[in-house]
Amino acid sequence: MSSPESSSSTRTPQVVVEDSEIFDSHEGGKLSVELKYPLDTQRALSIAYTPGVAQVSRAIATDRTLAAKYTWAHRLVAVVSDGSAVLGLGDIGAAASLPVMEGKSALFKAFAGLDSIPIVLDTKDPDEIVETLIRLRPTFGAVNLEDISAPRCFEIERRVIEALDCPVMHDDQHGTAIVVLAALTGACTVLDRDMSALRVVVSGAGAAGVACTNILLAKGIKDITVLDSKGIIGADRTDLNPFKAELAERTNPSGRTGGLAEALDGADMFLGLSAGVVPEELIATMAPNGIVFALSNPDPEIHPDAARKHAAVVATGRSDFPNQINNVLAFPGVFRGALDAHARRITEKMKVAAAEAIFSVVGDDLAVDHIVPSALDPRVGPAVAAAVAAAAQEPVG
Amino acid sequence: MSSPESSSSTRTPQVVVEDSEIFDSHEGGKLSVELKYPLDTQRALSIAYTPGVAQVSRAIATDRTLAAKYTWAHRLVAVVSDGSAVLGLGDIGAAASLPVMEGKSALFKAFAGLDSIPIVLDTKDPDEIVETLIRLRPTFGAVNLEDISAPRCFEIERRVIEALDCPVMHDDQHGTAIVVLAALTGACTVLDRDMSALRVVVSGAGAAGVACTNILLAKGIKDITVLDSKGIIGADRTDLNPFKAELAERTNPSGRTGGLAEALDGADMFLGLSAGVVPEELIATMAPNGIVFALSNPDPEIHPDAARKHAAVVATGRSDFPNQINNVLAFPGVFRGALDAHARRITEKMKVAAAEAIFSVVGDDLAVDHIVPSALDPRVGPAVAAAVAAAAQEPVG
Repeated sequence: MSSPESSSSTRTPQVVVEDSEIFDSHEGGKLSVELKYPLDTQRALSIAYTPGVAQVSRAIATDRTLAAKYTWAHRLVAVVSDGSAVLGLGDIGAAASLPVMEGKSALFKAFAGLDSIPIVLDTKDPDEIVETLIRLRPTFGAVNLEDISAPRCFEIERRVIEALDCPVMHDDQHGTAIVVLAALTGACTVLDRDMSALRVVVSGAGAAGVACTNILLAKGIKDITVLDSKGIIGADRTDLNPFKAELAERTNPSGRTGGLAEALDGADMFLGLSAGVVPEELIATMAPNGIVFALSNPDPEIHPDAARKHAAVVATGRSDFPNQINNVLAFPGVFRGALDAHARRITEKMKVAAAEAIFSVVGDDLAVDHIVPSALDPRVGPAVAAAVAAAAQEPVG
Repeated sequence: MSSPESSSSTRTPQVVVEDSEIFDSHEGGKLSVELKYPLDTQRALSIAYTPGVAQVSRAIATDRTLAAKYTWAHRLVAVVSDGSAVLGLGDIGAAASLPVMEGKSALFKAFAGLDSIPIVLDTKDPDEIVETLIRLRPTFGAVNLEDISAPRCFEIERRVIEALDCPVMHDDQHGTAIVVLAALTGACTVLDRDMSALRVVVSGAGAAGVACTNILLAKGIKDITVLDSKGIIGADRTDLNPFKAELAERTNPSGRTGGLAEALDGADMFLGLSAGVVPEELIATMAPNGIVFALSNPDPEIHPDAARKHAAVVATGRSDFPNQINNVLAFPGVFRGALDAHARRITEKMKVAAAEAIFSVVGDDLAVDHIVPSALDPRVGPAVAAAVAAAAQEPVG
């Protein structure tokens, strides 16, 4: 079965939405909290509130594990941000990040049937963020960290994972990495190329750049060159923060130096995760049969039409070009699968399983301009959830 | 117009609900988060999420006040508890308190159309509770503190009010006080008695006892005797915490000493807010034409049938007897009115206005066994909200 949008193989018209419509539809926010049962009779009130609810509270007080069965917390995702790296807007603060978090909660419901609440924090201190989530712990069942700036996001995610015995994922890192892996699997399959033999250039050493590099290394790719705003990250650089220094040890095996021109010359894949611009001439220097993922949004690092002159497969983050790489393909199903499996961690195996599930939905529709499913394909969420839940049952390896 | 239940003048049958039905209807919790608009087209996704949402976030970053218009936070009530004094169950912890907080959120929606989220905190330290709510501030628009033990609740409420520029109310204190004042207004009206001349006995010096005493003092009642578990609170007591010592200065003008027997002898009103038992013989010593509010739940301090032999008006917290005094008459409308009026505080004027509005709904149905509206009367929430909003516009006096 193919979803309505899954076989679009040419450029779809860009959705043009007037500003007024965007603002109108945000009035009062995008979410509502609803009752599962109406509260319009004395009987209903006696069940949901006093005196009935006392029995449920007493039972949980006696056996804490019952909270998972008789409250919504167990399957509730907290979408948590400090507003420090919101979309391409940067550090705009917690209040201004809330529309994005509401949108994320809406996507959790629409694509995985999960309830979630936006939690925006008026602090950027990692200690305070971790401490706050520890105190809030009985309120939710999983944490989607969102739009937290690098390199703080690495420490915060690590510490939140350590502190909370529930699924935690910084989506800007791992959601992106999962979908990039899925799309690269599609690209390599349609081009009949060996993924592990690719020479890959990653532009951007922030949250997404680091996470994508890690998942590609884990999949066996040996030659990855990562660039930050100052150029190629390597042993020669003396200005690296600890996270980039650590990256330098695991990447750039040939010891390349310089900038994008030196990196791209003869490369097989370009993965753009920064707001930079890549001239067409540099894409032209890549090896034949190449792959370009220009994921900067809303303006890809290179226009896909230009990239397609030199590369065999081109993907962007935009919905109006083929091969849209969008995190919504991953995070709803990843959390749904983790919660379905009562997982306490989101492991590397679960992330790889999610990528494989996304790729599997493409099926027979695989083509150079259809390496990933549509962001709206309703088959993706359940497929990812099932794969992630299955992977959660496997021993950690 | 009379609501279906508003003219019940005899005992209604107790709602008997099997345990299994209570637990079944709590499975997975009582709330869900829903989308205001479906997310099933590329256009909808472009509005609610990227790229459209960036415009909204950018606008709020430029003008922070727009968060009130374009997110749900402005009208979102956080129902916050540390689980330290849950119903009559005591300190059962945050996780076990969650079913009550979910119920509270359900009541906010059902009776005032307000969205709310339960926030249960795994700390009982007042500093940490206040600090956590400060950090969460951009997430919500009002705070309903709930089931926090006395005397901690007084300090926590005071500090949260000082720290956050939004409506904050500890419902166990003020919700109870508002409904007690409404019911007492009804009782005095039907009995044609002067409220300020009543000699009142308050049993219980916890959250509700202190708040009810305060609102009755503010309404001009001069002779109030408060008891805690050790007896009458007065100048002779050397074992009082600072809150009770302060209460001793403002109550018990005749300097009564002793216990419930000494307090009730000749009293006009008994207000029971503890889990104690009051023997019928003591109620019999009250002055004629008396008022008994026996609000302990599920077991009133004295059975209403026994109290009615000696008192002219009897009320309890139970739905199966006449005159149910239930906080749900107050808190949904109080918060709705405060938020409708963009109030930054819930003032004493607003609380008194809420009580008057609750009483006003009784109207021509006023009778000794109908001094307050039914907890399910759909007219109450809007009436309270309108009165509170109007009072919020008045200068603080």
